[in-house]
Amino acid sequence: MRQLFVTSIRDFEKNTMGTVDMMEAPMPEPKDEEIRIKVVYASICGSDTHILTGNLGEMESTTRSMLPMSFGHELSGVIDKVGSTAEKMGFKVGQKVVANYAKYCGCCENCREGKVNLCSNMGYRMNGFSEYAVYHMSQIFPIPDDADLKDYALVEPLTVALSSAEQAKISYGKSVAIMGAGGLGMMLVQLARLAGASTITVFDIVPEKLELALENGADYALNSAEEGVAERAIELAGGRYDCVLEGTGATAAAKLGLQLLARDGDAVYFAMYGKDPILPVNLQSDLYWDQKHIHGMIQGAWQFPKSIRMIPRMDFSKIIQKEHTLTNYKQAFEDLYSKKYAKIVIKMDE
Amino acid sequence: MRQLFVTSIRDFEKNTMGTVDMMEAPMPEPKDEEIRIKVVYASICGSDTHILTGNLGEMESTTRSMLPMSFGHELSGVIDKVGSTAEKMGFKVGQKVVANYAKYCGCCENCREGKVNLCSNMGYRMNGFSEYAVYHMSQIFPIPDDADLKDYALVEPLTVALSSAEQAKISYGKSVAIMGAGGLGMMLVQLARLAGASTITVFDIVPEKLELALENGADYALNSAEEGVAERAIELAGGRYDCVLEGTGATAAAKLGLQLLARDGDAVYFAMYGKDPILPVNLQSDLYWDQKHIHGMIQGAWQFPKSIRMIPRMDFSKIIQKEHTLTNYKQAFEDLYSKKYAKIVIKMDE
Amino acid sequence: MRQLFVTSIRDFEKNTMGTVDMMEAPMPEPKDEEIRIKVVYASICGSDTHILTGNLGEMESTTRSMLPMSFGHELSGVIDKVGSTAEKMGFKVGQKVVANYAKYCGCCENCREGKVNLCSNMGYRMNGFSEYAVYHMSQIFPIPDDADLKDYALVEPLTVALSSAEQAKISYGKSVAIMGAGGLGMMLVQLARLAGASTITVFDIVPEKLELALENGADYALNSAEEGVAERAIELAGGRYDCVLEGTGATAAAKLGLQLLARDGDAVYFAMYGKDPILPVNLQSDLYWDQKHIHGMIQGAWQFPKSIRMIPRMDFSKIIQKEHTLTNYKQAFEDLYSKKYAKIVIKMDE
Amino acid sequence: MRQLFVTSIRDFEKNTMGTVDMMEAPMPEPKDEEIRIKVVYASICGSDTHILTGNLGEMESTTRSMLPMSFGHELSGVIDKVGSTAEKMGFKVGQKVVANYAKYCGCCENCREGKVNLCSNMGYRMNGFSEYAVYHMSQIFPIPDDADLKDYALVEPLTVALSSAEQAKISYGKSVAIMGAGGLGMMLVQLARLAGASTITVFDIVPEKLELALENGADYALNSAEEGVAERAIELAGGRYDCVLEGTGATAAAKLGLQLLARDGDAVYFAMYGKDPILPVNLQSDLYWDQKHIHGMIQGAWQFPKSIRMIPRMDFSKIIQKEHTLTNYKQAFEDLYSKKYAKIVIKMDE
Repeated sequence: MRQLFVTSIRDFEKNTMGTVDMMEAPMPEPKDEEIRIKVVYASICGSDTHILTGNLGEMESTTRSMLPMSFGHELSGVIDKVGSTAEKMGFKVGQKVVANYAKYCGCCENCREGKVNLCSNMGYRMNGFSEYAVYHMSQIFPIPDDADLKDYALVEPLTVALSSAEQAKISYGKSVAIMGAGGLGMMLVQLARLAGASTITVFDIVPEKLELALENGADYALNSAEEGVAERAIELAGGRYDCVLEGTGATAAAKLGLQLLARDGDAVYFAMYGKDPILPVNLQSDLYWDQKHIHGMIQGAWQFPKSIRMIPRMDFSKIIQKEHTLTNYKQAFEDLYSKKYAKIVIKMDE
Repeated sequence: MRQLFVTSIRDFEKNTMGTVDMMEAPMPEPKDEEIRIKVVYASICGSDTHILTGNLGEMESTTRSMLPMSFGHELSGVIDKVGSTAEKMGFKVGQKVVANYAKYCGCCENCREGKVNLCSNMGYRMNGFSEYAVYHMSQIFPIPDDADLKDYALVEPLTVALSSAEQAKISYGKSVAIMGAGGLGMMLVQLARLAGASTITVFDIVPEKLELALENGADYALNSAEEGVAERAIELAGGRYDCVLEGTGATAAAKLGLQLLARDGDAVYFAMYGKDPILPVNLQSDLYWDQKHIHGMIQGAWQFPKSIRMIPRMDFSKIIQKEHTLTNYKQAFEDLYSKKYAKIVIKMDE
Repeated sequence: MRQLFVTSIRDFEKNTMGTVDMMEAPMPEPKDEEIRIKVVYASICGSDTHILTGNLGEMESTTRSMLPMSFGHELSGVIDKVGSTAEKMGFKVGQKVVANYAKYCGCCENCREGKVNLCSNMGYRMNGFSEYAVYHMSQIFPIPDDADLKDYALVEPLTVALSSAEQAKISYGKSVAIMGAGGLGMMLVQLARLAGASTITVFDIVPEKLELALENGADYALNSAEEGVAERAIELAGGRYDCVLEGTGATAAAKLGLQLLARDGDAVYFAMYGKDPILPVNLQSDLYWDQKHIHGMIQGAWQFPKSIRMIPRMDFSKIIQKEHTLTNYKQAFEDLYSKKYAKIVIKMDE
Repeated sequence: MRQLFVTSIRDFEKNTMGTVDMMEAPMPEPKDEEIRIKVVYASICGSDTHILTGNLGEMESTTRSMLPMSFGHELSGVIDKVGSTAEKMGFKVGQKVVANYAKYCGCCENCREGKVNLCSNMGYRMNGFSEYAVYHMSQIFPIPDDADLKDYALVEPLTVALSSAEQAKISYGKSVAIMGAGGLGMMLVQLARLAGASTITVFDIVPEKLELALENGADYALNSAEEGVAERAIELAGGRYDCVLEGTGATAAAKLGLQLLARDGDAVYFAMYGKDPILPVNLQSDLYWDQKHIHGMIQGAWQFPKSIRMIPRMDFSKIIQKEHTLTNYKQAFEDLYSKKYAKIVIKMDE
């Protein structure tokens, strides 16, 4: 079967981007508790971009040592083969499913307190850009029979968006600032509307993406590189923002987000950041006087069933802007490097 | 009637501390919606110390312009005279009461969303070190007939401790780190036990106060000036801390607190800090990976009835370490400057 | 000035409905802390229907003793005259505003714990069907200059819908059952979508209202009088409902709601019910095994600013189905008795 | 090895209680993911009493069909043998541990939303009154090396008490009514104090247990069979109760609890109830006007690590009132039938 691998990371000296290559890989076989799926769609994640563009912070050397590296963790497909135990749990060949790349150990202190996203022994299975992939049965989630598999390929990133939106406490009548108009940013715009936010402002530096933010339901879309953008954003909303969501991974955006945050407001930082990225928080004005709440967020827990149920309420036609076949994968990554598209999917099952 | 006033702020050049003087003031008269109380006990707050020791940050010049300045906002007493409207609300001469120094406008956006501690037009009445004081009826809270007025003088600081403990989400089985073993720190130790914390560690630099922390129920008390204190604290608790409360106002303590905070833990910063006090937060390790939650806290809202009900569960005999008469007020502030006592009260009603 | 009064309650023996009459009333004058508004729109509430149709439970004799009785508590208008204290708080003649009929005492235990909807000395001012009305400044809320006053007349009922939706914990991916397709029911449908509900089913017995529910965004609308409706509703949603909201005041609907409720789900009962209305809850199956949560809800607290901010997200064109002038008030109440319209408003300012 | 079995259920006609017999059972062998423990202490649960006294409601015939039936699910011990996979997860022979009798499937919708206590395929392993017992590694929790195994035998019932206390939202300054002064009731008294409750009142009909409640920290202990007990309880607390916990399984106690519940208060029903046990809830007075919250509670989720950490804060010397050796098991169940003891433990490891 065919599978994509990251074969090199960006070379800053030679100014070349990371490379992806298609290789022939052995067909994986599921064990008793495992399930093999025929992947139909897999979507490119922002963290894949981090890898290919060498924006890896402290994980750079580890990542380099893993090349060539399988990747891809946003996918949908059809069950192809079922291990004996998994069969007893009710999984069937032909079922449409999505997969969670993370496998939780169930035995560490965090798992046993229900905080699986902080599992101390988390297993990662990153092999979504592949014609077939095998997962433990606890990682496989059935979806409706009539599901459009392209939309459901975005169940995993939607779990991240849901966790972030919940952590930011978006709810009726709140104003929301979203840093970054990529795939997650656009999901957040839709989710902010679906949580009752009364004002939604998006920040990015790419004009096409600002336009897209408005199409997805933002009230305002501002170029964060322009001078006075904070003042403008506050004026438009009639005050600072109750909720701030930062997903760009840029320190400047992180700072702008804190500046935009209202008294007693909640800011969530859910991006991966480069080396030594410091957010200076003023103890007197930000914390004591303004009583701000600054939250980190990693992955989220227990969101898959909810995310699956939310897919019909989302409009991914305004988020998935490019679709390529596996054969045409080179173009997909060129499109990624162009930074013009919120979300790009690859169809494995050509 | 006699009343205390701050007459000078610390002079750093001459190395003299701020001064307090007793003056004769006119007896205040309550309006229709007001109530006059004969103050029995008033307690010295850490923020009074901030004023007297010139640790005022950006508020220094404003404060200097207000001298001589009445002060004192932790007090208990007996109703002495009742305005006509207040009488209709059921207030009676002779009732034991405590007062909230803050008066909320009820008409600003924050008040109308129930966030009175963020009231845009908050009125402050700081006149507790006084034989008589007048408040709006909404600022006066009846306490039990058999209340010990010395203990109830601490209802107001207990509202701050309660808000901080709630904000830090102290609950069953959590580990708690408390920075500062002063009056609020000791209340927090008792409140942490009364919230089910399974490990409580207190940090201070004064040996007597560390001893006091253990007497109040801390499991461990560590000198935060010693090298390796963070590692030692983490070893004792078997891991980093679920809840961190910082009330010293020192940036070093604020940083130590963040360092001690566990993944998915909650840190609350409820102190006033000096000029430009910056807490550097690492976006990648503190926020993304560790999913920490960093909260500010100012004053708290709706806590007076709860605080009054909690007084019988507290043991203030281990917190109020000095009591002076009004006549002997000079000694009270010398004791304050000695930094040896968690809480000092003055008895007005000699 | 002209004002409407309830002049009689339904006579069950003679089978006549309650009557409303227009009378000339003296122009009210605002005191220092009060504000007079020229009412522009006032909307008829379901509780007005309770009064007129004699469905009053234990409050029947009290209500009869109050006739002729002023009423109306859902209104919008323009400030006409401002008391001196209110002026200092920034209120101005000409401002567009809405009013909260309830005035909270601020001095009872509940008010002081922030539970103003449970105020022990609540003042009610029910005089919205009137050309002018006077309120305490804490009851008056400014709205945007460009506000459509017809929509904003529904701010008060929207506060009830918001409180109910929050109490029911509607959020991403939950299924929601709404009993009753009247004004509040339709707001709840819209709010359920604006909270991320993934399935919304509405129950009523009037075919036009079921149709309207679908237009407002419900996924399914079922006639609750039909046999097997519970089974059908559960089948459509793929299981029982995470959230149930009962606003009809009918015991049968209350029971159906409990039957529809999922394990660990939340049901909210926010209607007024007639005499001795008993909901039988099975301790073993509903509570122990199913771990259901059954909540009451009265009025809600702190919702006005939020409700005002939510108006632009609502589509009241599908809820306000009839508008009459004050002169034409007789027709408005005939329309009410027809039970065909979700919401009827009267324009005072003809 | 020796093991206890329920060999008969109460015969109401002959007026004989259920019987327990000791039998020789084969030594169980752990599979790869399993662990065998040498049980040291096992404690008798109230639900064991339900079985033996025939108070089984709808489950009676099922239970009868399972005789002779192994039982016991509150236990502590030492790891005796470790399967190969469990060994890789770090489990070691000689470790002190406790066990969770429930095994969650991890694949049902509830498990995947983190609601493991509602697992659709829950596996129960009730074999604690036994010299050796085998569990899946996910059911085994290490405890400290210096743990007193008698106290830790109560980790499982403490998880239920913790879940109930959390569901009842016990916190600072709340008044708490606890129905039933058995083992769980006494844990709840201690937990209520450890959550900051300001008034704790316990209800039972056995005088010795009321005495015990006071020793465990209750402020008041009332005989629920006495006339006027509700009025007396409300007078003592200065009002109705913010939190009510009902664990007796008696409908009369369930009704009394609802009557005691304050406006906006939370009642939790965590007992198993007999056949058709109906709690009549008044929609108008209990729900609409009083805004009460009525919660069911089954088992609780994710509580084991927390419960283990809470053991050192509990004082079980006032709860475990009897200890017997396995050989002396007959006496243990006679003591149980006497109803005089809060908690009885059996020492397997004589």
